[in-house]
Amino acid sequence: MINSNIITIGDEILSGHIIDTNAKWLSEKLNNLGVTISKRLTIPDKKKDIKKTIKLSINESDIIIVTGGLGPTNDDITKKTLCEIFNSNLKEDKKSLDNVLRIFNKRGLKITKKNKDQALLPDKCIVLNNDYGTAPGMAFYENKKLLISLPGVPFEMKSLFKDKCIPLITSKFKMPIIYQKTIKTTGIGESWLSDLILDWENNLENDIKLAYLPSLGRVKLRLTAKGYNKNTLKKIVDDQIKKLIPKIEEYVFGFDDDELENVIGKLLTKKKKTISVAESCSGGNISKVITSIPGCSKYFLGSIVAYSNDIKENVLGISRKLIERYGAVSEEVVEKMAYQIRKKFKSDIGISTSGIAGPSGGTKEKPVGTVWIGYSDKNKTVSKKLNLTERRDINIILSTINLLNFLRINLEGYRKG
Amino acid sequence: MINSNIITIGDEILSGHIIDTNAKWLSEKLNNLGVTISKRLTIPDKKKDIKKTIKLSINESDIIIVTGGLGPTNDDITKKTLCEIFNSNLKEDKKSLDNVLRIFNKRGLKITKKNKDQALLPDKCIVLNNDYGTAPGMAFYENKKLLISLPGVPFEMKSLFKDKCIPLITSKFKMPIIYQKTIKTTGIGESWLSDLILDWENNLENDIKLAYLPSLGRVKLRLTAKGYNKNTLKKIVDDQIKKLIPKIEEYVFGFDDDELENVIGKLLTKKKKTISVAESCSGGNISKVITSIPGCSKYFLGSIVAYSNDIKENVLGISRKLIERYGAVSEEVVEKMAYQIRKKFKSDIGISTSGIAGPSGGTKEKPVGTVWIGYSDKNKTVSKKLNLTERRDINIILSTINLLNFLRINLEGYRKG
Repeated sequence: MINSNIITIGDEILSGHIIDTNAKWLSEKLNNLGVTISKRLTIPDKKKDIKKTIKLSINESDIIIVTGGLGPTNDDITKKTLCEIFNSNLKEDKKSLDNVLRIFNKRGLKITKKNKDQALLPDKCIVLNNDYGTAPGMAFYENKKLLISLPGVPFEMKSLFKDKCIPLITSKFKMPIIYQKTIKTTGIGESWLSDLILDWENNLENDIKLAYLPSLGRVKLRLTAKGYNKNTLKKIVDDQIKKLIPKIEEYVFGFDDDELENVIGKLLTKKKKTISVAESCSGGNISKVITSIPGCSKYFLGSIVAYSNDIKENVLGISRKLIERYGAVSEEVVEKMAYQIRKKFKSDIGISTSGIAGPSGGTKEKPVGTVWIGYSDKNKTVSKKLNLTERRDINIILSTINLLNFLRINLEGYRKG
Repeated sequence: MINSNIITIGDEILSGHIIDTNAKWLSEKLNNLGVTISKRLTIPDKKKDIKKTIKLSINESDIIIVTGGLGPTNDDITKKTLCEIFNSNLKEDKKSLDNVLRIFNKRGLKITKKNKDQALLPDKCIVLNNDYGTAPGMAFYENKKLLISLPGVPFEMKSLFKDKCIPLITSKFKMPIIYQKTIKTTGIGESWLSDLILDWENNLENDIKLAYLPSLGRVKLRLTAKGYNKNTLKKIVDDQIKKLIPKIEEYVFGFDDDELENVIGKLLTKKKKTISVAESCSGGNISKVITSIPGCSKYFLGSIVAYSNDIKENVLGISRKLIERYGAVSEEVVEKMAYQIRKKFKSDIGISTSGIAGPSGGTKEKPVGTVWIGYSDKNKTVSKKLNLTERRDINIILSTINLLNFLRINLEGYRKG
């Protein structure tokens, strides 16, 4: 198992002014190579911290990736620290100096001593030439440990990592192959899902790892196998998935990069159906999520956000009587909304929401979080009641996820229990 | 100087599957309190790593914030480790159990042992009750060191930190007073803004720090003063703001927590005006943003998302001729959309968008990113053309920001240049 520590040097990141996207990106790339990230650290631009952290990381891991601390105003510290750790001296690197001169000439800028000093590099390092900036990357390989220091500017760091570091890593370490498959579920919480698949999980071979990845209204199950033969790995993972799916079929909406909105987009496209939406409590969010998918104009005609009861009556055509008898948040009204939008927009399918998003508007019978969702096509008009939370923003998101999943289930003609 | 280490526990963050937004958010909040973040660490969900890292952090810093590792499937490890470090035993906390039961009852869900176990807490901890989830936060104060352990779910972590941790931190440590004021602008880029205020910036006293915080379509200017007398700090910052505002007035839409959607909400409420929206390329996002504000039903009546031209014609009542003559993305159509929605919904104001969000649908005359926005009230109907980007997601967001700002400017009756 090859281990890696990722060290980010940067006061701006520590103070919370900018988010560290580099560490996430590097983690993902290293993980895909088969490297386990054992720790990530963010430290200030101070010699003492840099030296201590790098030395500790060399002890703890096989590959150490350092980003940041190489700009023209602060690279002295990082480079001098690396010289001390690896018993090196700074020496001018011809190719790096040419690169600095080229960049300054191209931009028509005057060069300063600080800029030229960026070409001074520890004499024991492998220079990683930076085509997009003035700070070169550096690599040190000693006692089977590989330390790589890269500039913090994301696009410079990324191209250096892809072009120079990946070949370096795979030449120094023998990497396993990783095969991953993610099952996406909705409509069930993490702990119930875990109860449903307990037997299956307990019988998983040791070479497959299962991860639960919950997010609002959804849980992902990710299976990972690591080894040296891709076909074998694929087979053992796929075999396990075949055993798993029947236990949770009604909750599975897709795999890997699937999201509800593109799953329903594909289903609508395949079935050549058009859709329209009547929204109340979701306030436009369902339309927004559906239209986030490029090409949705093939199946999405449009929506009415009928926020006030007058609009429900005058624009959507729900009778005032129905609203008065059952209330706007009711089975009767939400079904009529789905039916009416379908008729009005001449779409094959109509879907709808009506609920109390909060924070106000709740009653004892219908507390905040009470939401009805509806579906209508030429054969049927159906609805479902949801009991959500006390939080407006969460209720809007959960209404959306639930309605899109309700649409999916009705489109697939599949509904268990 | 009070120092803090932030520890994130999470295999998913280490593997790069999700980005650690919590650490950035916490850094910013701690920084605003006057706490210096000396290190951030991300470690796996393993007892050995958790114990070692927490112990080291207690040695190195005054305040240690740990997030993650408290979900129903993995909280054993973190809580047991905390018990070992602080010589505690797990004990059922009545209030936390009631909270778990309340949440499960409300959602009508069956409770499992794992869920109940979330109420088992170290007997020496200060329990931080979590109103939004089943995992409580925990705090330990020993030898003038404060350790806080919070769930990793962002909205639970954030509300616990704001409501419970900030009072705890300020009660245990003497903090300098920080006075901050943020000016929110839109419609101008960072470098142009910086040119406009160059003289003012160069004359800023040393005790005031200025930060440019750009985000999509907006730039925040944050002034910070640190000291021990709140009135003095407030005075020097407010004096500077008085000098600054006249230079950039047309771009300023608010201060501090103001967002465009609540600024327009307040304006509409104050002027007792109602509004409706006709959306095309923005696909529901404008309605979604307006309805994110609690109480918006006072002024927001509803919307039509007229995605297809048939809906523009048959539901919104734009003549086919107009669309054919000028195209759906045109001054004429967007103004007619704003006018029609106002008439149809009987609102005081109508606003509209029509554009090419992309990635397809662009032409040489109207490339992807061409967007028209419209405004109509009983006195006038006006519009504005935007030339946005090639990215669908960004175009939707920028259309929304621009239209809300266009609405604000028309509502305020203020328009310079």
